[in-house]
Order: sequence, then C-alpha cells, then structure tokens
Amino acid sequence: MTDPALMGVAELAGAIRHRQLSSVEATRAALHRISQWQPVVNAFVRVEADAALARAADLDRAAAAGQWAGPLHGVPLAHKDMFARAGGSMTGGSAILPGQPQPDPAPAVARLEAAGAITVGWLNMSEFAAGPTGHNIHFGHNRNPWDPSRITGGSSAGSGAAVAARMVAGALGSDTGGSIRLPAAMNGLIGLKPTYGRVSRAGSMPRAWSLDTIGPLTRTAADASLMMAAISGHDPRDPTTSRRPFPDDRTFLDRSVAGLRVGLPPQAWMADATPEVAGAVSAAMDVLAGLGMAGAAVPAPPLEPYFALGDAISKSEAAAAHGTWMRDRPQDYSVHVHSRTEAGYHIPATRYLEAMALRGRLLRQFVETVMAGIDLMAAPILTFPVPTIAETDEEQTAAIPAMVARLTRYTRPFNYLGLPALALPIGFDGAGLPMAVQLVGRPFSEPLLLRVAHQYQQATGWHRRVPNLPA
Amino acid sequence: MTDPALMGVAELAGAIRHRQLSSVEATRAALHRISQWQPVVNAFVRVEADAALARAADLDRAAAAGQWAGPLHGVPLAHKDMFARAGGSMTGGSAILPGQPQPDPAPAVARLEAAGAITVGWLNMSEFAAGPTGHNIHFGHNRNPWDPSRITGGSSAGSGAAVAARMVAGALGSDTGGSIRLPAAMNGLIGLKPTYGRVSRAGSMPRAWSLDTIGPLTRTAADASLMMAAISGHDPRDPTTSRRPFPDDRTFLDRSVAGLRVGLPPQAWMADATPEVAGAVSAAMDVLAGLGMAGAAVPAPPLEPYFALGDAISKSEAAAAHGTWMRDRPQDYSVHVHSRTEAGYHIPATRYLEAMALRGRLLRQFVETVMAGIDLMAAPILTFPVPTIAETDEEQTAAIPAMVARLTRYTRPFNYLGLPALALPIGFDGAGLPMAVQLVGRPFSEPLLLRVAHQYQQATGWHRRVPNLPA
Repeated sequence: MTDPALMGVAELAGAIRHRQLSSVEATRAALHRISQWQPVVNAFVRVEADAALARAADLDRAAAAGQWAGPLHGVPLAHKDMFARAGGSMTGGSAILPGQPQPDPAPAVARLEAAGAITVGWLNMSEFAAGPTGHNIHFGHNRNPWDPSRITGGSSAGSGAAVAARMVAGALGSDTGGSIRLPAAMNGLIGLKPTYGRVSRAGSMPRAWSLDTIGPLTRTAADASLMMAAISGHDPRDPTTSRRPFPDDRTFLDRSVAGLRVGLPPQAWMADATPEVAGAVSAAMDVLAGLGMAGAAVPAPPLEPYFALGDAISKSEAAAAHGTWMRDRPQDYSVHVHSRTEAGYHIPATRYLEAMALRGRLLRQFVETVMAGIDLMAAPILTFPVPTIAETDEEQTAAIPAMVARLTRYTRPFNYLGLPALALPIGFDGAGLPMAVQLVGRPFSEPLLLRVAHQYQQATGWHRRVPNLPA
Repeated sequence: MTDPALMGVAELAGAIRHRQLSSVEATRAALHRISQWQPVVNAFVRVEADAALARAADLDRAAAAGQWAGPLHGVPLAHKDMFARAGGSMTGGSAILPGQPQPDPAPAVARLEAAGAITVGWLNMSEFAAGPTGHNIHFGHNRNPWDPSRITGGSSAGSGAAVAARMVAGALGSDTGGSIRLPAAMNGLIGLKPTYGRVSRAGSMPRAWSLDTIGPLTRTAADASLMMAAISGHDPRDPTTSRRPFPDDRTFLDRSVAGLRVGLPPQAWMADATPEVAGAVSAAMDVLAGLGMAGAAVPAPPLEPYFALGDAISKSEAAAAHGTWMRDRPQDYSVHVHSRTEAGYHIPATRYLEAMALRGRLLRQFVETVMAGIDLMAAPILTFPVPTIAETDEEQTAAIPAMVARLTRYTRPFNYLGLPALALPIGFDGAGLPMAVQLVGRPFSEPLLLRVAHQYQQATGWHRRVPNLPA
C-alpha cells in the first residue's frame, strides 16, 4: 500500500476506518516524514511526538472496540501555532506570546480533535500572522518544499510547507489579508478562506478581528471539505459565527458542475500577470468549460478601494491589539512587524469607522452587480512566480509597504468583503513552482467552491505531484 | 376637575380610561398650553394640531365603542425632533437634516402610539443632539420655564421645557452624554437614561451609536414607568436591543424600598458642589433613609477615565457620521457643533478601539467593586446652579470644551459604562431653579431606580410645583 505520509485526509480516514491502516502507523509515518523534511522547510515550531503517538494508540484501541470518534478518527494533522489548547502554549510566531496567559482552548482545533484528528505539532508562521512571505526572524524562515530558496507565502507559512511536503495531510491556517490563500498558492495546495463568520476564532491569536478567518490547507478539495465540516458552525464564544450548516457528508462534491456560471478573471485584474501565469489561468478556465461550466465576462470593479478599506481596518485593529507590547517590548518585534504595526497608530478613528460602515453596503453592491449573473468568479492570486527568500527580505523597511501590497493585491479585497475564496492549484511553471487561481463565491458558498475545485482536481491531477527531498 | 394640562401621563390615561375626560379635551388642553408657553420657552419646532385632534377624535370614538388602544390611550405627548415617522420629516435641530431621506419609522415613537399616545408635535433640541445647553442658532434657543433667561440643558432641551411647562405630560429624549438627564435636572423632571440596549434606536437620528440611548422625560417616576413599558424591548432593526422584559403594570413602584442599600454620593464627586446643592443632595439622602433605605459609603473611582473614553467614542462616531456633511456643507453648522465635530477627526483609530475594548471590562469592574454592596448609587448631576443662556454662549469656540466638560462631568461616564441613570428632582434653590440628584443602577435595573424615585416623590412632592407663566 501507499506510504501513509503520501495519503490525503480523506484517504487516511478511510484506510483507518476500513482497518487497512492503524492510527499509530499513520502517525509514525507523519513523524518520520517530519523528521526528513523539517531541516529543509522549517515548517514546525513544536512536534509533539509522544503525545500524538499516545493519542493514536488510544484511538486504535477505541477503534478495536468499535468506538469511532468521528470522520477524522486517527488522522494526524498539525496547525498554525496560534491556537490555544488546554495545557498548551503558543508562539504566534513571535518572541512575545510565549509566556502570555492563554485564552480558553480554540474550538477550531478542539472540533477537529473531537472528530478524531490527532495534533502532531504546531506550525511555523509569520510573526503575529503579519507577513505575506513566511519570513520569521525568531523561529527561522519558512522554506518552500518545491524550492527551498523560495518563500512559502504567509502568514500560514508552515501550514503550506508542511502539507505540500506531505509532513501532514492537512493543517489549519488563518487568513486576514491572504494568509491561507498565499501559502496555498505558493505550495500547490487547496486553501480555503471561509466566509467571515463561518468558523469560530475563539481561542486563536487575533490579527484583526473584523477580518480574521480560519480555514484549512490541504492537497485536495475533498480533504478541505472534511476539515470544514468539522470546524464550521456557531460558537457562543465568537458571536460573529453563523448557524448556517456545512454539509457533513461529501456527496455534494460529486454533483455535476455543468451549467454553473463562472465569472472569468477580469482583464484589468490580469493585466500584470506573466504570460506563464496568464496561460495557466486560461487553461484552468478551459478545464472548467470542459466540465460544462459557462464562462462569463463580469463587470470588474477596481480592487483598490476594497484593499485600502480592508487595510485601514487591519492596521487599526492590529495596532490596538498590540498597544501594550508595542509600548513595553518594541525590541521584541522584527523591524517588519514593528513598522507595519506602527503605521496603524496614524489612522484616524473616522477612517476606521467609515471602512466599517461601508462594508455591508459594498458587499451587497459587489454581490448584486459583479456576481449578479454568475455562481462564482475566478480571480488571480499571484500574477508572478513565487519569489525567493532573498528578494523579499522583510527587514528592509522602505520596501515593505510595496512588497506587502504586491503580494496581497488580489487577496485582501475579499477579506474586506468577507466573501469565501479558495486557492486552487493549476499547475507548475517552468521553474517547477506552483501556480494558482482564486475562486470567489457568494457568502457561505464554500460547498460550491469546493465542488468546483474537486471536479477540477479530478480532471487534472496537479495535486498528485510530490516535491522531492533535496539530496 | 384639574386642568388636564396639569395632569401627568398616568393621571391622563386614568381619567380617559374612566371616561372622566376625553382624548380631544386632553389634546385641546395641551394645545392651549402650548400656545401660551411656546413664546416663552420655544420648546416646539412643529405643532401638529389638526392631526393630533383628528387622532384624538378617532381614539374617543374607539373608546366609546369599548376599544382601547393600550395603556396610553388618548394621552397627548411630544418628542425630541429626531424620530422618523411615516410621511414625516425631522430637523434633528439642524439646518441639514430637513430634506434628507428619512429612515423607516422609529419604533420608540411607534410603540407609544400603538399604546394609544397622540403625538401633538416635535420638540426643539440642540443641533444634531450635540450640545448640553439647549442653544440652537437655527430654531432659536430653548428657554427654561422656571426662568427663561436660563438654559434648559440639552440636548433634549425642548423635551425638558415642554414637560416642565406642562405643555405635554411626557416626552422622549435621547442621551449620549447626558442629554436626557441634564434637561430633566435643569427643568425639575424625572429623566431616565436607560441601560444601553434597553430601547431601540432604529429610525432615530444617531449621535454616537455605541452610546446613544432613548428614554422619557416626565414629571413623575410613575409616568416614566408607563412610557418605559411601551418603548422597551427587542427590535430586530436595532441588534443591540435586549429581550429582557420591562414590567407592564406599575405595581412594582409601590413595593417597599426599606432595606435597599443606596451608595451615598462620593465625597470626591461632590467636592465642587455649591453648599445649596450639597445640602439638597444630603436632604434627599435623608428622605431615602426615612423610607428605610440604608446609605453606604462606596469606593468611588475617579470618573475622568470613563469620561475620556466615552468622549473618544462619541467624538469618533459623530465625526464619522457627519463626514459628508462636514465636507460639503460646513457653513450649515453652528460654530459650536462644527468645532466639536471637527475634533473627532483627530482621534486615532487605536484610541477608539481601546475605548471600545475596555468598555466591557470597566463595566464589570465598576459593578463588581463600586456597586458590590449596594443596590443603586447616588451621584451628582449638576453641582452648581442652572446657568444663564448668556453665560453659556456656545459660539465662543475657545470656551466650548471646558463648558461641555463641566456640564457633562457626572453624566457622560455612565453612557460609557452603559448603566441606567435617572435624574431625580430634589427641590429648588434660592433663585427658584430646580436641583437634582442622579440615581445609577446595575444594568437593566430601571424598575428599581423608578421605584425609589416614585417613593421619594410620594414622600416629598417637589414634582407638584408648577412654573408661572411670565406676565
């Protein structure tokens, strides 16, 4: 049988459920793979091998007695190091968070574990979830398994690298301006930024609470669906969470997509794309057409206003959240995060309130005009090749704003609008680096986005490519 | 029988219910009184005599047929001119609001009318509910019926003057920093600023939505209870509204207050009180003691932080709400409102967010420490005599901040904390001007505050004094 480390979330869960594989075997395979790849990509800040194996043994015993925890029974996962767990600690990728009082455990992780998942460790990330590259001066830079000289994207950097390198089959990340979609895109993964309010943020480190979302990074849409079914739903500790149900079986993934209307990536948004990226996006649209979907041109508004409004909210809330530490421990921040947080102190309250007040109106307008005739729309994520670590040095203060803006140009607007957006891998460029497109849906249409992504993956197979461990 | 214009809300409702008085007679008496007093106090911006009389006649016909609209059947009221009504318009005391699109009707007024009340007109107010004096350069200054050279207090200025002058028996006002309690105190009325979230603000002109409350000004606590029972409760159009019920009969007012513990006005808060005000407050505490209540010293925190945090929220939200008009129609603002609104553009978003984030924590702390051993606390409202109109000229820009701070020192902190606070008249000073004390309760304890105020009024009778129409 396949190396369990190469299996996806759904495959592992199925193999364990059918007793073709034990949870201990799956966990050992993951730990072995982690030991091989960790020196290359630096994806983990903590591996909890003993605890994971003990839990796997417990789950195997339960299974032997016919007791199944849930649809993720025995599946090893790892998560961005920003979720509280009973008796645990978190770094948030920072030098400051360790030792701070922990909030109550995060339901996002607790719900995965309640469904049977095992947490084998905690993943490296951009400091305080603030950077789009995956640089980290405290825990070492994250490195891309497809080319370790390249960035992983951030801030859920280790989540991207760990899943792409097959260290684990799935990982939670968080997305305030692109932090799930960017590492998904740069690592060749599905990354789903859910609708604002779909997944509880309780017990997680906030970046900007009006924009923060939590979601999965996986190799397949089927795997992401399994994780979403576990983590979605209302939570009294996060009053923004919706009661809207998420389908708890995956049969919806196989319903035909023929006849669905997809908004084609607007010319204006693709203007700065390299020919290679433009070609890949165009080929992906052809695949969707081959599945019977109808492509439609959409009236594309400029994204800059959404970007700027989201940026005002993000900077204001981050600066407010960091007030005490920025005053008392400025030396414990990287130059990058310090300078970006500092910028938040110069935004007027009226600008923040204007951005908040316009949000509902602009969302309604976007859905009623841009998305009027379509079921979902395609948009770029990155219009250029995955950058190297060297060329995106975040400690060069003067270059930071432009670099951050360039990387998050097509992601941050959808955090402001609160819409669900999925990173879909669409192949590899000449240098062997992943390329991706973004699928954006109406509020709470994650199942539709996942269904289109699933059928695209069935028709293509990019998700089966595995990075090679450097010699 | 008594002149109906001199009767309170409950008396009018009772007399009409027992057919001792018709609604048309009550309305005619109010309109007559309005015609006498309007030239003196300038409390109304619109009187809707024909519509009010037509509605009174309808209600009399319904009553003759045994159909009673509700507990306010046939009672004429008037309200601060900041509530939308179907087919109506509102000035908000401003030159800008007339002609602007109206929101859907305000449930606060609609609920009073559904309970049978008649709206005879709309009351003058501080421009955009922004001033604590009752000055208004667009509609003329409000004048105090106890001495027309004095201010009424604001911003619910006409609500204070109209009820004190017996033009109507009750009026709605709004309170963002003291705007119900100040005119109640200066006019010798009960004024109840409810708990934040008790009364829907939908359809009303916002001042600062995180602080705005709507409540009644009446001569007696019994009258205020009747109005509160009508207007309290959940409203889907104002998601901050609580589902907590308000007692719908007034028997709770007569339950003994013996044994209740009242926090005595802290020395530090009374330090700047004139001997006359201090004496009146002390005498009022003696009356409460005579009712069997136990006075207790409370650990009094400085109010300045609550004031400053509330002021940051108020200024930020007001500036945001006025952004377009401040840019396009600056000449249509008074110097006073323009300069105070302008100040809101210089508050950093982080300061606003800090004020919002601290609010729940400081409220909990206040209730758990200051209010730990007591059922309600007494606090000053005004520590000096009601000022003259001349000495509070709001168009002297340099003097505005100090004047506003002096008038709202003891009121604004409780808007920040969101606690219910009631202005209780406690007599008249040597110049014949009303004095008052503030009763502050735990969240949603309005019935307790009203009960204490009711029994105080039964024991004293200050509310029976009537101002004399100047010759």
